[in-house]
Amino acid sequence: MDETYDVIVVGGGAGGVAAALRAAQLGGKVAVVEEKHLGGLCMNRGCVPFGHMMLASHFLGDFALAKEMGIVCAEVSKDLAVLLSRQHELIAFMQQGVKTMLNKRRVNLVMGKGKLSGVGRVEVKGKTLEGKSIILASGGRWMKPQFEGSDLPNVVNSDYLLTAKTLPKRCLVYGGGPWSLEIAQFLNRYGSQVWLASPEENLLVGESKTIRSRLTKALQSQGIMVLSGAEVLSLKKNGAGVVALTTVKGQEEILEVDLIITLRRGAALKGLGLETLEMNETAEFLSVNERMETGVKGLYAIGDLTSLENRQYSHLASCGGFVAAENSMGFSRSLDERTLTRIVFTKPQVACVGLTGKEAKERNYEVVIGSAPLSMNAFGMMAAQTEGIVEIVAEKRYGQILGIHMIGDGACEMAGQSVLAVQQEMTLDEMAQTTFPHPTLSESIAEAARDALGIPIYLP
Amino acid sequence: MDETYDVIVVGGGAGGVAAALRAAQLGGKVAVVEEKHLGGLCMNRGCVPFGHMMLASHFLGDFALAKEMGIVCAEVSKDLAVLLSRQHELIAFMQQGVKTMLNKRRVNLVMGKGKLSGVGRVEVKGKTLEGKSIILASGGRWMKPQFEGSDLPNVVNSDYLLTAKTLPKRCLVYGGGPWSLEIAQFLNRYGSQVWLASPEENLLVGESKTIRSRLTKALQSQGIMVLSGAEVLSLKKNGAGVVALTTVKGQEEILEVDLIITLRRGAALKGLGLETLEMNETAEFLSVNERMETGVKGLYAIGDLTSLENRQYSHLASCGGFVAAENSMGFSRSLDERTLTRIVFTKPQVACVGLTGKEAKERNYEVVIGSAPLSMNAFGMMAAQTEGIVEIVAEKRYGQILGIHMIGDGACEMAGQSVLAVQQEMTLDEMAQTTFPHPTLSESIAEAARDALGIPIYLP
Repeated sequence: MDETYDVIVVGGGAGGVAAALRAAQLGGKVAVVEEKHLGGLCMNRGCVPFGHMMLASHFLGDFALAKEMGIVCAEVSKDLAVLLSRQHELIAFMQQGVKTMLNKRRVNLVMGKGKLSGVGRVEVKGKTLEGKSIILASGGRWMKPQFEGSDLPNVVNSDYLLTAKTLPKRCLVYGGGPWSLEIAQFLNRYGSQVWLASPEENLLVGESKTIRSRLTKALQSQGIMVLSGAEVLSLKKNGAGVVALTTVKGQEEILEVDLIITLRRGAALKGLGLETLEMNETAEFLSVNERMETGVKGLYAIGDLTSLENRQYSHLASCGGFVAAENSMGFSRSLDERTLTRIVFTKPQVACVGLTGKEAKERNYEVVIGSAPLSMNAFGMMAAQTEGIVEIVAEKRYGQILGIHMIGDGACEMAGQSVLAVQQEMTLDEMAQTTFPHPTLSESIAEAARDALGIPIYLP
Repeated sequence: MDETYDVIVVGGGAGGVAAALRAAQLGGKVAVVEEKHLGGLCMNRGCVPFGHMMLASHFLGDFALAKEMGIVCAEVSKDLAVLLSRQHELIAFMQQGVKTMLNKRRVNLVMGKGKLSGVGRVEVKGKTLEGKSIILASGGRWMKPQFEGSDLPNVVNSDYLLTAKTLPKRCLVYGGGPWSLEIAQFLNRYGSQVWLASPEENLLVGESKTIRSRLTKALQSQGIMVLSGAEVLSLKKNGAGVVALTTVKGQEEILEVDLIITLRRGAALKGLGLETLEMNETAEFLSVNERMETGVKGLYAIGDLTSLENRQYSHLASCGGFVAAENSMGFSRSLDERTLTRIVFTKPQVACVGLTGKEAKERNYEVVIGSAPLSMNAFGMMAAQTEGIVEIVAEKRYGQILGIHMIGDGACEMAGQSVLAVQQEMTLDEMAQTTFPHPTLSESIAEAARDALGIPIYLP
């Protein structure tokens, strides 16, 4: 053997880095194997650059309210090159930070593609590393859409935007998940004409009707054309652009656009050497239990590798990393998946934690639901949170809070309250008596709890 | 007797309205006695208009970061009249909302100054109301500053700004509490030259040094002249303005300004008829226990009437209102003062909940403190949260969280997490394992908890 470790982490993204740092902190001799860039999708091509771009687009979105308040910007110019350059610097700075942290904890960074080669072995560029535990954290992969003409150069994924010189005049964003919604809003704010076509019946499939319909309404009022139940059948070249033949709820529709952005992603199982452990590399994702164990002794997997697209969140990856690291190092810890926040950085923001009412009923809970619109909240009125609402789902017997679902600016930071409520198994009574500071949107969480108890104070 | 009630609430502000609605909800026959405007200081002259003005000033504060991101506003105009007119409409709308809610719950609104006249009696305009319980909620009062020349028309309180046609060119804001800081920043953003003179040694006296010094630095970098340990000795007229003789840390200094804004407030005990119950109307405030009881049977008091200036928060008043209402109606409830958020709507925002390290030590806790600067947080880097930090205070034995102190944009909505942590008596271990969504500032709460445990993941 060339090198032996306590823990070998395959993949240096959000999950892998968290796992490596935690394992090293617990005294392990640790290696991280990374093929391309430390920080993974999240830092290089996902949360960080797109979070940054959404922040910029929110500034643009603020102008309408500012104007109502007497602040008028006569002439606004937007320089995409400056925006992208700032985020390149930011990413370079963060990558350097990750390197420094790995160094400081004496984690060995091995550059190259890691591939399993039997129990406890990872091959990198012909070298074999041996590890008592191996944590697979190599992430997801892009999947080509399946319609005719999807090979045309006008069909791109989100990476396109990270180095774009100009933005498309007319763009079809094909997908109804958080990232698609964010990109649609960004392009809209930056001047593109945007169609947001979701093959599913609604945007944010799986979330509560209240949240979905309010967000859809907000996006539409901003000028985004939302097409639900829409499928692209085929594409044809048309000058520099394309003509897309689509069906929208069964009706054929022709769209002429310059660019189609699709974000289908899956788990990247192929080429990981799973077959050397008699594991199935053609599965949709790698199944793990709540301890992040794959079933093969000493082999853990975390992050996008272990999820369908709708659970590919970097905070789930990094938390999975902590869990896998602790279990690798002989501790015992489980991931609390109940508290996963499904987050959308649009304006208004969306943050959903825990069960929707429908899901709770499917699990045979006797369900109570309460809600408090932000249009009845003092800060919500000031900040024109017309579409905002907090919805709380609980089981009736003890009043245990099962889920909190929010739409409104600030929801992403308020989400921590939902996480703590579900994690600490708070009851509606406890939440109803909580004193949130005034004037904040958070007050509506207490009011939603009171509404669920049938004792709203400030609702008509 | 003219009218008899289960509960008479004297004062229709944030506390009184909450008390009245809750008591009525519990089946009580309730009257609210209000002298001037429903909504009290909070809605008419405090949280709401100044929250609104701070929101406007934050938009102005955003331009610098927006510019770094390539969004440039060539020409920004600010129309104070439009701002004040929008908030007048907002307040009128909210007042109407309060009236509707009181009506809906059949609370009797009695206009006039309410005055106790013996046990269980309130006099209003010569009429006597009788109540099984009385909840005093008549708020605070302005106190004139004590320096020579404080009668000059250039010495005003915050009310001045609510109807101002123009803002002062040079303004001295005299005070170091949250509201003074907010006003100083508002005036600065709107073009005034501002001195913020705090008689205490520091701004935000009582808060942790970390929070105080970071906020001071931020305000200074925005162009506000912060004078700590500064006392105004005397004022003299000077043309349309004034010359203020001050001492700053013992050194005499002369300031020429156009306006002095002072915000000294006390409890408004005089004229309440306390002497008819042999209570002392010359005390600094009305003492109550955690059930909001005054010691006189059936007599409760809440809100600014019961606090020194540094605890005059409307969320404390309204929560006190719920507590008093429930106890009045035969239930038993106590106020959890541990969870009071001290909140400052400046940019960056400040939100402090629970004990500082110093306070915890004074109470003989063995203390551990952890912190996580927002300059190491992904979203914090994007949003240039240079001065931001989360500080967490816990006792060592069980790791129970005693306080969380934050500075950074978004802190006001993040504060709910601090409230829940202290209220639910969470431990550092629990907080360290919490999965906050990425990328948010809230993640730094978990990292601060890990830092307190000696196991930070992402700190250098």
